Amino acid sequence: MTNKRRVCIVGSGNWGSAIAKIVGYNAAKLETFEDRVTMYVYEEIINGRKLTEIINETHENVKYLPGHQLPANVIAVPDLVEAAKDADFLIFVVPHQFIKTICKTLEGKIKPTAIGLSLIKGFDTVEGGGIDLISHVINRMLNIQVCVLMGANLAGEVADEKFCETTIGCKDKRVAPILRDLIQTDYFRVVVVDDVDTVEICGALKNIVACAAGFVDGLELGDNTKAAVIRLGLMEMIRFVDTFYTGSRLSTFFESCGIADLVTTCYGGRNRRIAEAFVKTGKTVQELETELLNGQKLQGPYTAEEVNHMLRIKNMEEKFPLFTAVHKICVGALSPQKLIDWIRDHPEHQ
Amino acid sequence: MTNKRRVCIVGSGNWGSAIAKIVGYNAAKLETFEDRVTMYVYEEIINGRKLTEIINETHENVKYLPGHQLPANVIAVPDLVEAAKDADFLIFVVPHQFIKTICKTLEGKIKPTAIGLSLIKGFDTVEGGGIDLISHVINRMLNIQVCVLMGANLAGEVADEKFCETTIGCKDKRVAPILRDLIQTDYFRVVVVDDVDTVEICGALKNIVACAAGFVDGLELGDNTKAAVIRLGLMEMIRFVDTFYTGSRLSTFFESCGIADLVTTCYGGRNRRIAEAFVKTGKTVQELETELLNGQKLQGPYTAEEVNHMLRIKNMEEKFPLFTAVHKICVGALSPQKLIDWIRDHPEHQ
Repeated sequence: MTNKRRVCIVGSGNWGSAIAKIVGYNAAKLETFEDRVTMYVYEEIINGRKLTEIINETHENVKYLPGHQLPANVIAVPDLVEAAKDADFLIFVVPHQFIKTICKTLEGKIKPTAIGLSLIKGFDTVEGGGIDLISHVINRMLNIQVCVLMGANLAGEVADEKFCETTIGCKDKRVAPILRDLIQTDYFRVVVVDDVDTVEICGALKNIVACAAGFVDGLELGDNTKAAVIRLGLMEMIRFVDTFYTGSRLSTFFESCGIADLVTTCYGGRNRRIAEAFVKTGKTVQELETELLNGQKLQGPYTAEEVNHMLRIKNMEEKFPLFTAVHKICVGALSPQKLIDWIRDHPEHQ
Repeated sequence: MTNKRRVCIVGSGNWGSAIAKIVGYNAAKLETFEDRVTMYVYEEIINGRKLTEIINETHENVKYLPGHQLPANVIAVPDLVEAAKDADFLIFVVPHQFIKTICKTLEGKIKPTAIGLSLIKGFDTVEGGGIDLISHVINRMLNIQVCVLMGANLAGEVADEKFCETTIGCKDKRVAPILRDLIQTDYFRVVVVDDVDTVEICGALKNIVACAAGFVDGLELGDNTKAAVIRLGLMEMIRFVDTFYTGSRLSTFFESCGIADLVTTCYGGRNRRIAEAFVKTGKTVQELETELLNGQKLQGPYTAEEVNHMLRIKNMEEKFPLFTAVHKICVGALSPQKLIDWIRDHPEHQ
């Protein structure tokens, strides 16, 4: 037994594996961390072999991050409780719909002093309407402090060690430098802010704006219009946080989790791409999900619906005309050609 | 004689003609403005005819904005003093290197109560190093209040009446609504802020950042890196304004003149394009200007040099590593491959 800090990565998809590469490297390098990093891997059989075995022998996640070596000190563990039980830091990086099942399994089985770091993008839907932050769900279910990490971080490029920035949201001044040390490398640059909720919310709302940007591309309205739509979307993100999560700071939107991630998502990103195809093909979102995403749910329309549900209940749709228009267009209640008319007299112009 | 306000547009290039379309339309519509709007046109002979004559007969600027009708109440005038003499509003929209000559011609020949609106992007160079804002130059030389207008406003798209936003910087609360009425249309949406200097400076500094974005494209570093470079560029823009022009507000950078214009310039725009070619071809900026811009000066490298001169004198280069690297790369003192190394330990990461 040592006093060194132990880390467990809960999740092993594309992004989970990319972050495992960084965390494994830093844990091995830093005196204050235990070398061994566990990675919870949902067991699958790949060409007749267990994925955990392949990872532990070849140090490659052949299914979700092929072509990249994980550090040898990252150990794939197929049992969630086993992987997490001694961890001082739990890094959550699973699709958001799985988080409650994960937390239920972990309830009472983790260190009470553990600290969570959520890399999960998207909201949790509250029954009867409204949204909840994933970090709040984890915090409530496991009764631990939960920090977040968001940024313009396409997993493949991070795994390629291309230079980028990320934002960690952490209120605890003692924990912040530890997380920074655990995550930062020469090519993956960290800024820590204490405005945690804002950091997390940016990661979900950006996908609504990316849909609007994709509609503009599909309508071929040009660069000026696209810039205006992205800006108005950002202003609605700011207004949303300001309205529903008091204490947020404008400066947080200048971090990588804010404008940087928004811009990348609105110029690259699949929400933009599918929204463009939506306009050009006239197909429904569901048809496009089936054809282009193997039936996977697209985040933007889904988040737009959750947010719209909440805005409607609170009678605030007209304060968020862009978010509202994106939802209406996605469900076929508004023609994409009407997008601009919906934002022409935006509250920002009053 | 009436008490109606008179407007003169000083300049008739691409952007000047596009704004003339808007201003002419609004002046004709609004009771408080004289219908007749003068447009100072530097006389040229086009196919044997004077450009002013062509514009006044066909209402088309066949040289700088072909294919678009100007309102019939916009009158091209080849004499600058004649065009400007009765104006209550002088809209300056000429290349920045001509502004001093223009002002010299107008000294003592305009209404003392006239108000200027500068659409000119770029700095004026102060002899011996340092920069000056164009609006300050006009203000000093003509002794009039000068407001500014900047935004994500590609002239061709504005002329096509595609939806966009613009930012007017104006400190005078009585003048602000008048300017807004004169400029705003259904498709050209105005936000007025009183942080005038910031609005103007954004329009110049963005071109430095666009060069960095173009280098990243040329080096094929990917979306994450490009997002990081754009963000770090924006943070240097904010720091620059904060250091040299006190009283600026963070919120101004969220306006169309800020992030919207920056983003458009970093994804479209010729500074980006030439910077990408710079990396891919290995040619000098001068060679590329000759080949791709008919010898026209590219704004970004030029502004980077002016800004660097100022930073060097004040011993502040290392607080602005991105601006500094862009300048060094443009003059051949640094290889573009070294760009990322220069910003890896950016002050924002400390």
